[in-house]
Amino acid sequence: MPKVSQKGISMPESPIRKLVPYAEAAKKRGINVIHLNIGQPDIKTPQVALDAVKNHNLEVVEYSRTEGSEEYRTKLAAYYAKYDIHVDANDIIVTTGGSEALSFTIGSITDFGDEIIIPEPFYANYNGFSTAAGVNVVPIISKIDDNFALPPIEEFEKLITEKTKAILICNPGNPTGYLYTPEEIAKLAAIVKKHDIFLIADEVYREFTYDNRSHYSILQEPDLEENAIVVDSVSKRYSMCGARIGCMVSKNKALIKTAIKFAQARLSPPTFAQIASEAALETPQSYFDEVKEEYVGRRELLIHELEKIEGVTIGRPQGAFYCIAQLPIEDSDHFAQWLLNDFSINGETVMVAPAAGFYASEGYGKNQVRIAYVLEKESLKRAVGILKEALKSYKG
Amino acid sequence: MPKVSQKGISMPESPIRKLVPYAEAAKKRGINVIHLNIGQPDIKTPQVALDAVKNHNLEVVEYSRTEGSEEYRTKLAAYYAKYDIHVDANDIIVTTGGSEALSFTIGSITDFGDEIIIPEPFYANYNGFSTAAGVNVVPIISKIDDNFALPPIEEFEKLITEKTKAILICNPGNPTGYLYTPEEIAKLAAIVKKHDIFLIADEVYREFTYDNRSHYSILQEPDLEENAIVVDSVSKRYSMCGARIGCMVSKNKALIKTAIKFAQARLSPPTFAQIASEAALETPQSYFDEVKEEYVGRRELLIHELEKIEGVTIGRPQGAFYCIAQLPIEDSDHFAQWLLNDFSINGETVMVAPAAGFYASEGYGKNQVRIAYVLEKESLKRAVGILKEALKSYKG
Ligand SMILES: Cc1ncc(COP(=O)(O)O)c(C=O)c1O
Ligand SMILES: Cc1ncc(COP(=O)(O)O)c(C=O)c1O
Repeated sequence: MPKVSQKGISMPESPIRKLVPYAEAAKKRGINVIHLNIGQPDIKTPQVALDAVKNHNLEVVEYSRTEGSEEYRTKLAAYYAKYDIHVDANDIIVTTGGSEALSFTIGSITDFGDEIIIPEPFYANYNGFSTAAGVNVVPIISKIDDNFALPPIEEFEKLITEKTKAILICNPGNPTGYLYTPEEIAKLAAIVKKHDIFLIADEVYREFTYDNRSHYSILQEPDLEENAIVVDSVSKRYSMCGARIGCMVSKNKALIKTAIKFAQARLSPPTFAQIASEAALETPQSYFDEVKEEYVGRRELLIHELEKIEGVTIGRPQGAFYCIAQLPIEDSDHFAQWLLNDFSINGETVMVAPAAGFYASEGYGKNQVRIAYVLEKESLKRAVGILKEALKSYKG
Repeated sequence: MPKVSQKGISMPESPIRKLVPYAEAAKKRGINVIHLNIGQPDIKTPQVALDAVKNHNLEVVEYSRTEGSEEYRTKLAAYYAKYDIHVDANDIIVTTGGSEALSFTIGSITDFGDEIIIPEPFYANYNGFSTAAGVNVVPIISKIDDNFALPPIEEFEKLITEKTKAILICNPGNPTGYLYTPEEIAKLAAIVKKHDIFLIADEVYREFTYDNRSHYSILQEPDLEENAIVVDSVSKRYSMCGARIGCMVSKNKALIKTAIKFAQARLSPPTFAQIASEAALETPQSYFDEVKEEYVGRRELLIHELEKIEGVTIGRPQGAFYCIAQLPIEDSDHFAQWLLNDFSINGETVMVAPAAGFYASEGYGKNQVRIAYVLEKESLKRAVGILKEALKSYKG
């Protein structure tokens, strides 16, 4: 029987996926599982985007341009301008989700055996895209006690080798909710320029910032044009994860030219989703105001309730809609499984994401879980209540 | 300035793309460019698919399941059963176009430096996906004089090394239109089993077979379960290339399990397109009958007209909607460019795809072009007329 590749064996499984059979079994036993584990918001997609798809008048669903339609990219450039990010249509490649932007970026700047430095904990799929490209993730720890702030810049310097091609940050961060300050971005800019490497920022949660703080993009940083690559997506912004539209943005012409070759191989991004995404740019500000207010409320509630639990430490998120919670347990994989298999209150339990899958360093995150606040407040409150009682009963 | 990767530099450009600026310039001069170069059919997408998208009732456009919805995969299995291909939902991963199925397949079975044997000329993007994965394409020449039949099986044996992980065929073929016989498939089956490697068949043109011949899938071949991987797509079948839905199909469980990890990293295939694709399965047989009749007519006309031109040899296509034509010229790149820059009849010219881009072996295909018959007969006839006159005027 022919064998799968070594790479295929090394590909990480989603840190959540292995719990799915337990969740399904719990549901079969009649237990209501409250999902704190996934990044799929319950927020409605803007009506203007849904309607644009309903009203499509295509007769032949043709390939679009490889890099996305001129019109959509031009409008995207105008969207960025509102955030003081000055790019034009040619600096943008429309991709099939932020996911594909990550994979084109990694392909365009790395060869087999190269390295990318990523502050951990990080979005677990960075591991997958790196493995697929034969690239090694070099993690640098950011600590819950520092609320996941940028690690000291000397620590980055220590890790940079001949093989280092980029530093990748997620801003605001999944799973940390950390929002980088302009000062931190400036420090990163200095180091990537000094070592002539790229700075990749995954800014898919750009709009989700709290405490009156605003997002500072690496594309706003002066003199970083040739080094900066932004990964973006409509998935979270308009709560349309299933559309599968994102983009990569860079002023580095050679990079864009190279990435377009990767894009050509897969022909084009999805047409219906581009219709939705272009229309979504007309979403009224009131939609975002409401969504933000909702997330702010959820975050307050979540933090407030979690802080009441003895032995729980939380990284206070300033953006996105996740937080890392450190629990008085030893093995969050086991705990998450136990929650699904052996615990419930009034026929309900919760599903959390064990945090070890968000670290590349062995042994980290074992007493942490990621909690996504993508549920309405009432469920969120009940879920934290269940977690509190569970921690009392859990013997490890 | 940070540099792009060696891989990025090696990524092939689409063989058509470099001509696009010339085509655009011709259009600016008021010339009507008849496109014989692209695989974008002009056929209408089935109404049932278009309507399903119009009538969607989503409120939140959520991620779908990584491997595609259970329902759609179950219906796909039923579709295959009609072609005497017996698979179930778990043997299928829904992908973002056949393109993504190719990239998951290559990722799942190859490591850096491995080899895949592909009869050439072949679909140019096989090169792109292989390069992206650090895999070497080992071409084996199929000849226009044999109408691109399967090369002698001894020739394959000669090329198989420790690093060979698969043989990849396209059936029916783009760009050749070649349709493999069951006997040829049996020969390939024997050789991949003997050497314990995979046989990948790109069957995206399954429905497009002519001369009363029917398609024989590698999944119909007995005892090939563990070796066979089929790449499929809705793009051509329902003329909805822009939807971006395809799938990979295999009975090899370890392979599917591995490919799902690649799929997880990119989260899910596009939701609107899955709605269209699921509905498209209800397309009435009359649609396919009409489409086939149309293509048969176009093929007859194209071949008939091309055969009238002195010095032109054509591979007679038995499937898909392309053919390779050998012209009395030395450099089809130059000729194609000249057609756009320097030639027109009554304000019209044609754009063809130089065939060298469909070969991996240096120097092959230089006197060949690929012609796609995705235009209505009247334009096709005019286009061949222009080609005929052009060949008279062209000095090389
Ligand atoms: C940080 C981050 N980046 C990228 C993505 C990819 O999202 P998509 O491919 O849907 O744009 C996600 C999705 O959860 C994410 O959390
Ligand atoms: C032979 C072949 N395979 C695969 C594809 C990829 O098509 P898609 O990604 O649209 O399914 C094409 C498109 O032209 C093709 O001709």
